[in-house]
Order: sequence, then C-alpha cells, then structure tokens
Amino acid sequence: MNKEIYDIAIIGCGPSGLSAAINATIRRKSIILLGGELCTPKLQKSPLVSNYLGFPEIDGRTLRDKFLRHTRSLDIPILQEKVDSIIRVEGDSFTLQTKESQYLARTVILTTGVTVAELVEGERDFIGKGVSYCATCDGPLFAGQQVAVLAFTNEGIEDANFLADICRKVYFIGGGGLVPKGLKDVVEVVENQKIEAISGNEYISKIKIGDRDLSVDGVFIYRETYLPDQLINGLNLTDNHINVDRLFQTNIKGIYAAGDCTGKPYQLAKAVGEGQIAALSAVQYLDQ
Amino acid sequence: MNKEIYDIAIIGCGPSGLSAAINATIRRKSIILLGGELCTPKLQKSPLVSNYLGFPEIDGRTLRDKFLRHTRSLDIPILQEKVDSIIRVEGDSFTLQTKESQYLARTVILTTGVTVAELVEGERDFIGKGVSYCATCDGPLFAGQQVAVLAFTNEGIEDANFLADICRKVYFIGGGGLVPKGLKDVVEVVENQKIEAISGNEYISKIKIGDRDLSVDGVFIYRETYLPDQLINGLNLTDNHINVDRLFQTNIKGIYAAGDCTGKPYQLAKAVGEGQIAALSAVQYLDQ
Repeated sequence: MNKEIYDIAIIGCGPSGLSAAINATIRRKSIILLGGELCTPKLQKSPLVSNYLGFPEIDGRTLRDKFLRHTRSLDIPILQEKVDSIIRVEGDSFTLQTKESQYLARTVILTTGVTVAELVEGERDFIGKGVSYCATCDGPLFAGQQVAVLAFTNEGIEDANFLADICRKVYFIGGGGLVPKGLKDVVEVVENQKIEAISGNEYISKIKIGDRDLSVDGVFIYRETYLPDQLINGLNLTDNHINVDRLFQTNIKGIYAAGDCTGKPYQLAKAVGEGQIAALSAVQYLDQ
Repeated sequence: MNKEIYDIAIIGCGPSGLSAAINATIRRKSIILLGGELCTPKLQKSPLVSNYLGFPEIDGRTLRDKFLRHTRSLDIPILQEKVDSIIRVEGDSFTLQTKESQYLARTVILTTGVTVAELVEGERDFIGKGVSYCATCDGPLFAGQQVAVLAFTNEGIEDANFLADICRKVYFIGGGGLVPKGLKDVVEVVENQKIEAISGNEYISKIKIGDRDLSVDGVFIYRETYLPDQLINGLNLTDNHINVDRLFQTNIKGIYAAGDCTGKPYQLAKAVGEGQIAALSAVQYLDQ
C-alpha cells in the first residue's frame, strides 16, 4: 500500500479528468490520476471536432494528443490502474482500491464518463446485496458459495479464475461477444446467453438465463464503463447520472464529479469546464 | 428595425459567448452575437494561460485570436453594438434594444461577464424607479425633470447631451477619471466627486454628492460592464450573479446565462463549457 495521502484523486483521464488534473496541479495540490490506456476512446474515435473553442476543425485523435501533451507538460503521470472501490476512512480521507494497490486521498473527483451499458434487470436493486463489481474486494464474502460472473472485459475472466479458487461454483457469462480465453476448466461457461434478471429477497438468490434459473449468492459484473455509483456507496443519482451542485460536489463530502457522469449534454467543452470547476472546488475545500 | 427573428441572441463575445455562438451555429440555428470591440479584455491582458486544456502555455492575446478565428471560420459576425435592454414581446420573443437598432430573437443567452463595479448605495433599490442604464430607452420618461448622469464611459457623455435636450436639468458626474469632453454647456459637471447615495421613497428624489444633496428624479449610470440584471427585469440573482440551473436556464423562460455572470470561479474553461451548454439548451428549447 502506498502510504502517501494525496490531496486529490481523480478517477478517469478523459477531458474532464485531465482538465481537473491540470487545474489541481497548477494550484499546487498533490494528485493521483487513475485511468485507462486510451484515456478517452470516444474522443480518439471522433473524426472531426469543431465545437471546442480554439480549435476550428480538428480530428479527435490529434486533440486527444494535445490534451495528453498538456498533461505531460505539467509532469502529471497517468496511472493505468482501474479503481474498484472507494471507501471512506477515518480522518475524512478515502481509500481507493485497485487490483494492484491501495491509495489514500483527501478528496476524490469522479470523471468516469457515461455508462452506455444497459443494466441487468434487478442489478441496481442488489448492489451490495450480492451484486459486485470487484472480486478482489468482495470475493471472500462469497467463500464456499455459488456465484456468476458477467464479463464484457478480460478482467472478468481473471476474476472468475480468482473466484473459482474460493467459491463452490462459478458460472461465467461472456457479454458483448467476449471469448472466455484462459478460463479455468472448473468454471462453467453459460454459452450464448445473457442474464435476463437478477432476483431474490433481501439478497440475491437466483439469476434467470434463457429458460434456466440458476441459484447463486452473488453476481460479479465487469464492463468497460463504470456505473456512476458503483465505486462508492450512497452516491445520489438522477436518471443514472451523479447528482452534483454547481460546484460539482456530490452528496458525499469530499467527493466531486464532473463530465459525462454528471449528465447531458455529453460534450467536450462541458467536460473540460466541469473538470476545472470540480478541481477548484476541491482545492477550496482542502484550503479551508 | 431589423425584421428578422433570430433563433438565439448572444450578448457578450467573451469565451462563453463565442462558445455559445459556435455551438449554436453548428446546430444550424440563426444567431446574432452582440459584443464589444475587444470581446474579452480580461483574456486579452492575460500574460499566460496554462489551464485551458489543449494549450499548455499560451498568452491571452494569442488565445483570444484563436477564439476569434474559430468564430470567423464559421462565418459568425460580431456586431459591435451595446444592448441597452431586453423586453419580452408577444409570441414569446424578445426585443433587444441597442442605440443603433432593435433586434428580435426567440431566445437570449447572457454572457455579459462579471461586474467588477461597486454599486452606488441605493442603486439596486431604485432600478426602474429612477435608476436607468439607457437614456434612449428611458430618457423620455424624464422629460422636463432633473436627472444626473454617472458616466464611466463616453456613452454617458453622449447620453447626457441627449438628456440635456429633454430634461430641465442634467448633472454630470464623471467616474473613474473620465474627462467629459464634448459635453454641452447646459450640462452641469459636478467635479471630482462621486455619488455617495441614491435615496427617495418609492421613486428617487435625491442623490448625495460630497456634502451636497441634489434633487433629481432620475440617475443614468454608464459602466464598462453590465450589472447582471440591468438588461431585463425580473432576473433572479444570488450575490450579484444570475441564478441558473444546470442547463443554464435563468428564471425567465427563453433567457439563458453562462460564464462569469453566473458565478465563480471566474475561469476560462468554465466559461467555454457553460456557453456550450447554454447554447445546446436553447437549441433543445427551440426544437421542442
């Protein structure tokens, strides 16, 4: 575990996260910026951006490179680690759990982008009651039990293998055409199917797949994008977007959010502006 | 009077106004963009901007030129006319009154920047009850009466001359070292003084200047910057900033606001992002 307590942890390195990072760094706060390899696949794939003031016509890849160059010019590293959960610890700090490590930060800015994923019926109802997005975090709670893994990413394969060592039974459902390469034999692959519903009473008891009902105690789900509230418990949402005020504070003190995860329009300039405001709000909070 | 009804009128050509203009134009709305000569003196004077994502280090003048070039690339003209008032007309449109003309628009985006001016004591209490910012608009109401002009800009000199033709008495107070060049002899210049207070009962009856009390029925005030609510009656404010929701709608249907006039932090990326959202909100409203 990394012992340093960062002033600000920024989760996501799209335009909003990068804007937050440069603003916080210029204001001399210590930051940790965690994001994926491409940072912003949406921008990367955009053939032409014409509505970000200052660049009349630019392709997304070039603009993304300019954003990353700006970030590098301020010596801001981007850690390619996926945050699995955020937990408040004593002294008003937060622990960020990744597969590789843990990080401590006094404030967190969520710039996790938009979730395009369609939720499984019942998924949101059972978050923390059987639905999990992180086997490293929650796997041990299901020792000796039956679980299912719904994986749209390779991380789901790794975690299914991990769960196979501690659970009595692991079902694997590949989403979005994912090929379950490298999966242990003991894991049962449910082919060409999707989970139609998750159900139970207080906790999950079964999932419906095609015409089968499988008894499970837990469902682990791995997608490219985060659900807006999957990282930390108790975040208030409206229409699957994180509620923020005009300073981009969420309902949890010390947690800010900016960019697409806070709502429409899903636009670059909005994301950059909001990342800036969230960073400056966090700076102000830290300086109090 | 210009008979065209524009979809969107944008008042102010700082970063927020320009961002609104390019976004509205790209969404194929007809716009009219009204602003001053320099568009954004604050940016123009900034020696170094380092926190607008995409431009690691750039001086304000160069960045401003890039913004204006972006605007020109979309054939968006900037009318150098100062809007004096906005009035709702039938059919849910608005009339924008300038010295030179009148314009009609279905929606208005206020990007008038921040008011650094210190208000005169009593000024806000008497807006519409003797305090005015436009002699062309309100002068005739004061025919045969006594008025004072507080001028930080040459526009105040012109308007004092205009008022001299219709009022019984015009006092002139130059603010911020303004030299009253070209003022008609009939106007009484109150030298080296400032208005300390405006008072009256329901309407203005006098102003306090040094140890003199002058009886006046009206006070016309001319500053470089707008008060956030001087253009249209009934705009809700908090701490001298225009109240907006997260779509940058004000409390008046069809009127949006973005950038510094909506609150702190007074920052470029915030202004650009908010201008974009305000424009897209107006587009959505027009398309309903």
